[in-house]
Amino acid sequence: MRFFSDNAAAVCPEVMSALAAANRPDIPYDGDAWSARLDTAFSQLFETEVRAIWVTTGTAANALALAELCPPYGGIVCHRDAHIQLDECGAPEFYTHGAKLLLADGEGAKLSPAGVAAVLDAIGSEVHRVRPAALSITNGTEYGLVYTPAEVAALGNLCRARGLGFHLDGARFANAVAALGCSPADLSWRAGVDALSFGFTKNGGLCTEVLILFGGRDIEPSLFRRKRGGHLLSKGRYLATQLLAMLEDDLWLRNARTANRHAARIAAAAGDWLAYPVEINEVFLKIGSDQVRTLRDKGFDFYDWVPGEVRLVTAWDSDPAAIEALAVALEEL
Amino acid sequence: MRFFSDNAAAVCPEVMSALAAANRPDIPYDGDAWSARLDTAFSQLFETEVRAIWVTTGTAANALALAELCPPYGGIVCHRDAHIQLDECGAPEFYTHGAKLLLADGEGAKLSPAGVAAVLDAIGSEVHRVRPAALSITNGTEYGLVYTPAEVAALGNLCRARGLGFHLDGARFANAVAALGCSPADLSWRAGVDALSFGFTKNGGLCTEVLILFGGRDIEPSLFRRKRGGHLLSKGRYLATQLLAMLEDDLWLRNARTANRHAARIAAAAGDWLAYPVEINEVFLKIGSDQVRTLRDKGFDFYDWVPGEVRLVTAWDSDPAAIEALAVALEEL
Amino acid sequence: MRFFSDNAAAVCPEVMSALAAANRPDIPYDGDAWSARLDTAFSQLFETEVRAIWVTTGTAANALALAELCPPYGGIVCHRDAHIQLDECGAPEFYTHGAKLLLADGEGAKLSPAGVAAVLDAIGSEVHRVRPAALSITNGTEYGLVYTPAEVAALGNLCRARGLGFHLDGARFANAVAALGCSPADLSWRAGVDALSFGFTKNGGLCTEVLILFGGRDIEPSLFRRKRGGHLLSKGRYLATQLLAMLEDDLWLRNARTANRHAARIAAAAGDWLAYPVEINEVFLKIGSDQVRTLRDKGFDFYDWVPGEVRLVTAWDSDPAAIEALAVALEEL
Amino acid sequence: MRFFSDNAAAVCPEVMSALAAANRPDIPYDGDAWSARLDTAFSQLFETEVRAIWVTTGTAANALALAELCPPYGGIVCHRDAHIQLDECGAPEFYTHGAKLLLADGEGAKLSPAGVAAVLDAIGSEVHRVRPAALSITNGTEYGLVYTPAEVAALGNLCRARGLGFHLDGARFANAVAALGCSPADLSWRAGVDALSFGFTKNGGLCTEVLILFGGRDIEPSLFRRKRGGHLLSKGRYLATQLLAMLEDDLWLRNARTANRHAARIAAAAGDWLAYPVEINEVFLKIGSDQVRTLRDKGFDFYDWVPGEVRLVTAWDSDPAAIEALAVALEEL
Repeated sequence: MRFFSDNAAAVCPEVMSALAAANRPDIPYDGDAWSARLDTAFSQLFETEVRAIWVTTGTAANALALAELCPPYGGIVCHRDAHIQLDECGAPEFYTHGAKLLLADGEGAKLSPAGVAAVLDAIGSEVHRVRPAALSITNGTEYGLVYTPAEVAALGNLCRARGLGFHLDGARFANAVAALGCSPADLSWRAGVDALSFGFTKNGGLCTEVLILFGGRDIEPSLFRRKRGGHLLSKGRYLATQLLAMLEDDLWLRNARTANRHAARIAAAAGDWLAYPVEINEVFLKIGSDQVRTLRDKGFDFYDWVPGEVRLVTAWDSDPAAIEALAVALEEL
Repeated sequence: MRFFSDNAAAVCPEVMSALAAANRPDIPYDGDAWSARLDTAFSQLFETEVRAIWVTTGTAANALALAELCPPYGGIVCHRDAHIQLDECGAPEFYTHGAKLLLADGEGAKLSPAGVAAVLDAIGSEVHRVRPAALSITNGTEYGLVYTPAEVAALGNLCRARGLGFHLDGARFANAVAALGCSPADLSWRAGVDALSFGFTKNGGLCTEVLILFGGRDIEPSLFRRKRGGHLLSKGRYLATQLLAMLEDDLWLRNARTANRHAARIAAAAGDWLAYPVEINEVFLKIGSDQVRTLRDKGFDFYDWVPGEVRLVTAWDSDPAAIEALAVALEEL
Repeated sequence: MRFFSDNAAAVCPEVMSALAAANRPDIPYDGDAWSARLDTAFSQLFETEVRAIWVTTGTAANALALAELCPPYGGIVCHRDAHIQLDECGAPEFYTHGAKLLLADGEGAKLSPAGVAAVLDAIGSEVHRVRPAALSITNGTEYGLVYTPAEVAALGNLCRARGLGFHLDGARFANAVAALGCSPADLSWRAGVDALSFGFTKNGGLCTEVLILFGGRDIEPSLFRRKRGGHLLSKGRYLATQLLAMLEDDLWLRNARTANRHAARIAAAAGDWLAYPVEINEVFLKIGSDQVRTLRDKGFDFYDWVPGEVRLVTAWDSDPAAIEALAVALEEL
Repeated sequence: MRFFSDNAAAVCPEVMSALAAANRPDIPYDGDAWSARLDTAFSQLFETEVRAIWVTTGTAANALALAELCPPYGGIVCHRDAHIQLDECGAPEFYTHGAKLLLADGEGAKLSPAGVAAVLDAIGSEVHRVRPAALSITNGTEYGLVYTPAEVAALGNLCRARGLGFHLDGARFANAVAALGCSPADLSWRAGVDALSFGFTKNGGLCTEVLILFGGRDIEPSLFRRKRGGHLLSKGRYLATQLLAMLEDDLWLRNARTANRHAARIAAAAGDWLAYPVEINEVFLKIGSDQVRTLRDKGFDFYDWVPGEVRLVTAWDSDPAAIEALAVALEEL
């Protein structure tokens, strides 16, 4: 019973059906009818005019977003444990052509205006330091916490005041929206976000993510960078159709709710073992090596995280029986 | 009836089935069993030990290959009409961090040792010029011609003599192998090729290409660059399984033969209108604007290429009736 | 008697004196009083408000200018024989992060609007090609020709019409101004130039060039790039003082006139051997290998250029006796 | 009386004389006789065969060294307060094409094997993180401390064991050698250093630093990168001659000793105000704002460093009277 990551999940049936339905010759790259519908579809979802750019990975979406917001001689404030810092092998540096990540602190990989301001204030404006140009946060965070719309907006205000672009890594944006019960708009552009990497692969897609640009931003540089990065798929319609299938009848939201519900069940059973509140579909346990062994002996697989902590992730397709079994096992710990 | 490009083709049924068969939770990135089988599968195909790296686009495969063979301060000799020069928006420059493409000439986008040597000889070895570090050819070429194994080997010998890495853009490598009836080995490493971008998307895949590294070359730098480029898909198994499906029972070769046969039928009908011999699945016609209009009025769609030339491309799934209709239309011109 | 290049020349006495005069402790980088005077000094020279950024090499000035005018996914139209293409080892690609030089033709390394337009028209606006973003010309050219103000303005108009930034490589801008008897303004911003690499090293400096930005352009990105490129010297005052010494009493113009006059003397003697009109301080001779040997036997040193052509360059400090001897030798050929 | 930085110092007379002595036409770039002598001169100084590459700034030397030791997908371990991290506006990221600085801790900007190992151990070997490829230390450090030969060697051993290249930022290497009384060899290659940025500008030069490559390392990539970075000066002889003048009769060592002696005098007077031991020519004082004001009122200028600390730097040309006055003022505090 595997709780390694939601990116180990299968592709949900609706997406598979959409791929089959699209399977005929068509116009290559993003010239097809499915790709053409994306701007409208996502504009409806976000209640404002947006531009939507499909890519195959969250790393690509993040890197393109950061390249849009930060020049090569700029700096990007992010949490010390951010995915863009720890898990993308320097993709932000590659796509921005060498911008520097400026690391900030905060419990549970969550940043506060004060934490961000502290980083900025230490830099000043001289030419010997890179110029802070963007802020990037992850919602839900790498430790499964969510920023509320008000918390995002506070950071958005700081960005405006300091002249920073604001990027949101939304690998689990669906889970955050599901957890908060708010609108996607409240958690993004209304809170000052300029660019959102909106993840669909973990949440039921096969290989599709979307970069959303808000505020009438010129999309062309990102289109050139996508092509140049080797991310303009020749049969792009098979990406677009995945996205449209995920939007259809809020499949993205239902899948996220399912994953969150599974995690909540585990959290309820884990009680005091929890390292962080469980707000989306990630559970971090502070348990000893004996207990880790006990769980693994019972057939539960998961990652060791930092020393003394393990991470378990649920997904849209987690087996309810496995969830229940895990809950029982945790209660027995 | 569309003859725009083979990248407009559908996904072949065997690939769709393979996707469905792989659709269950599994290990992310390239840790799955399908990805693990690729080195062996391609080593068998190439009759030597190779390393196989899946990516989603030919542009990514080309760019990774060139980054492996050429330092940032190096130069890559290629044909003036090469895809890497004209159609990838600078992806080679992006992944190599600014190497320079050194343009050579040759009929039908085909290079000769003499043509390559002329470029090299004009440069010398001083520090004011970039240092030539690699040769890149496309087989079949952008104009539908093939290099024979002997022609590739002649270039391979030049590469060895001049200290160049040798890259083969094989977006239509399958079509070239099918046309020549030779082995993949004869057309690659036995002829001195170091890195091959082997295309499967045009030939029936959904979104999968593979970079093949020959000669025991260290694969690690390319793995880091793939990750850094945002090309390490989290559900990579869905790429690997496409490749395995294409290799199964030589599906890749059968599809390529079909596409070639369609083009041959058109070529036979086109007679003196042909701008180049038709050796794979691309047909270039030298026809006047009246004739272009006539064909389009009959429902045939295709690209204007250079002034006075149009390009028509067939694919594994071209409709035989459309091929026949086009042949008839050409005979009537 | 050496006619290799004007970058072999000595440093002129006024510059050496200025270095000595500045030799005391002062504020580092560009915080000193000499650096502070540059904007004003060059604004006077150009009869408009400009920003002046010292650097140590023309390659650095060119690369910074191009990075200012062209994004990484852009293209820079230049002559096939331009210094930025042939002699800077990819510095433009390095500083622009991989932009592509788009090569145009023209006699004597001189571009025409038609030649530039031909390159642009072949590209279109799609994402598969880099987007043309800048034009770069050299005045005087690599073959010693000059563009008149009207010729520059014609290219400037094209740039405005096509949305291109306009860069002028002025390694021998002084020689061009001296030859034309026009104002620096007429040959630069009044003709639509956005950024000028203004060379002083060949013309009597020790190691100083200046990048001039016109039109109220934001100077900050270039200042960051200069620092990041390792070109913000800690004792920058020794660069600034060189520039001020060169501007004093039009030393730059007098030196350039001297160099031009030397070349004119040689040209007058060379007669029909001239490969190009001699307009500044470069002389290209179409002479056979026997004649080359004769000249070298008489002690004249110079570069072989393209096959059948040799290049001789004069400088502010060319020995008049050597010039005269060469003139005599040429008349005897 | 200014104690801002040693890069505010003047150029020492021997260097000015050397410039004057070299002032005649000569072969451009690094083809002159002075440049040709550098390898030999520095090989003698280091008691082993080295390659010496002149550049104009320490930032350029550092960036070239790091590009030599670290691929774009690599990581460079350095101190959190290292000059390459805080004061070069991302030059290391620019020249390495996006490598990541991996920040380690240590008192006084000084690293220990344990501190470096902690950073390395947190990373592992997977493709999601950049691969640690180099260690960079500064000797004397940014806080004026020195690593002894044994301390450097301990880090050198770690580098060998972990497969890291070892870079030494020697902006004040002369001061460290002077302080330790050891040989340059003991403090560099004998302790495992692969590349040294050896600073001369702060120590009496006008604009010259040298990158030293040890261990028979191929110099060519760095020569291409220097050219490409715009750092191959056309009149390079004026850099080479500065270096040779500094080596003559150990001028570099005498100047460094002078600067160190001045700092020692201040340190002796500062007593308990010292934030760190004064080992070279930098003095950090932990003094309150009242005392800061007192000193400034008496005409002493210096930088505020971190809150509660100020930095004073002496140089080869510090005025002994000013040093004495400062010592007295400190004793009176």
